[in-house]
Amino acid sequence: MCKMLRLPILRFLTSPTPLAPPSALSKTLAPPLLPLFASPKPPTTPIRSAMCTLSEAASSRLLFRQLFEKESSTFTYLLADVGHPDRPALLVDPVDKTVERDLSLIKDLGLKLTYALNTHVHADHVTGTGLIKGMMPDVISVISKASNAKADLHVEAGDKIVFGKLFLEAREGADQPHPRLAFTGDALLIRGCGRTDFQIFTLPKDTFVYPAHDYKGFTVSTVGEEMKFNPRLTKDEGTFQGIMENLNLSYPKMMDVAVPANLVCGLQDLVAKV
Amino acid sequence: MCKMLRLPILRFLTSPTPLAPPSALSKTLAPPLLPLFASPKPPTTPIRSAMCTLSEAASSRLLFRQLFEKESSTFTYLLADVGHPDRPALLVDPVDKTVERDLSLIKDLGLKLTYALNTHVHADHVTGTGLIKGMMPDVISVISKASNAKADLHVEAGDKIVFGKLFLEAREGADQPHPRLAFTGDALLIRGCGRTDFQIFTLPKDTFVYPAHDYKGFTVSTVGEEMKFNPRLTKDEGTFQGIMENLNLSYPKMMDVAVPANLVCGLQDLVAKV
Repeated sequence: MCKMLRLPILRFLTSPTPLAPPSALSKTLAPPLLPLFASPKPPTTPIRSAMCTLSEAASSRLLFRQLFEKESSTFTYLLADVGHPDRPALLVDPVDKTVERDLSLIKDLGLKLTYALNTHVHADHVTGTGLIKGMMPDVISVISKASNAKADLHVEAGDKIVFGKLFLEAREGADQPHPRLAFTGDALLIRGCGRTDFQIFTLPKDTFVYPAHDYKGFTVSTVGEEMKFNPRLTKDEGTFQGIMENLNLSYPKMMDVAVPANLVCGLQDLVAKV
Repeated sequence: MCKMLRLPILRFLTSPTPLAPPSALSKTLAPPLLPLFASPKPPTTPIRSAMCTLSEAASSRLLFRQLFEKESSTFTYLLADVGHPDRPALLVDPVDKTVERDLSLIKDLGLKLTYALNTHVHADHVTGTGLIKGMMPDVISVISKASNAKADLHVEAGDKIVFGKLFLEAREGADQPHPRLAFTGDALLIRGCGRTDFQIFTLPKDTFVYPAHDYKGFTVSTVGEEMKFNPRLTKDEGTFQGIMENLNLSYPKMMDVAVPANLVCGLQDLVAKV
């Protein structure tokens, strides 16, 4: 889809998850509160007797919503720590056209929006980050350092974005085998992919995959499922490269509008929009 | 949307849920295996010491996928008991245009499709049930008795559809306060509604609401959230009636095709379609 762009991406992987067995979950919950962008190693030997408690705590404190923008087939994710008195929240990949819906939901749920993140510089829609910051200047915009896009905070692999007692971790590879939800941007789509790398497949097979886009009506998959059934990524690396080089994709509709806008967090024409 | 039709509906409510605290979950798991369409009362005094175990068992055995058909904005739900050796599955509200996607997913996941259910006679798309039965004659189609539509099984309030050790319960009202996921058909949409009744709001506030349709990109809500923020259902019954009588909705696009087809489970032109 964006092979001419070759923009670097970060994937955001998070910890607590619906349907996760406590043994998997507990590993991810190690530090009760993480300082922003510190990257302490999680303990490698979790205390088994504390597992159930930790798992219940995580499940009951994470509010998680998947939201869809039909025109660009983009998913926006809302996550919040509702166990924390401030109910801090973050949005992943907000779209300009659905900012009103998202902020209204955040208000309804009594959440305090702290971060607005982009997994990558999108070529098919304008990010909602600029509009959000126009209305809520305290919200911190986040994108990868490697993207060369403007934002309040630039993250790189290992950086953690903490909201309450939960955190998202930015990753380029997949070196730590303990996330439970992976926000894969366009690097891994359900039964498809954009730009990708095969490292994603070193994640545990039961990791839930939540992509930035879907064109067929899927909402979630797992790493194991994509390893087995993804029509592109089940090929060897050479065949995969051949497929990707011969896709003959049409030029993304919104490319000339979206990419320049997203490189400045959708802020270039903010006055006209608000 | 369908006020001229006034077709009776059933809402399907199910038990185990992502993110549910074990105290709520355990109540729903009472009988280890339920005979089809029996409706035994759940035990009113769950054994507290067994709670955690029950909750973990339910969470780890339920596979749950929400799937979307963009043109009619319809959600299809796939549920399966993956803890059972047969991995029995059921589809709620399949759409004819996405049957291939759904069956391919079911095959990928190694599930055995047992039931195809419709929450109501849809006016905006043709159900996929007929196509599915054409390809898999053993699949049992299910709809409410009150719908007057054709199906292998007709259910009424209190009937349970068992798959493995899990079950869906058909309800017209909301007399038993213990479901964790509610498939609300068009009776309760997120921040909207079709035909509805206020009894849904007697369900526990943390019940997850999974509607048959969404037009704004929402995927899930809760009973508590809709009680507070649903712009129609927060009005008193008189005001609500006024709103619904003055919606001046356009005639549903697919009404003349979809309703006759759905009354025979999408089977009327099966030969032409397959």
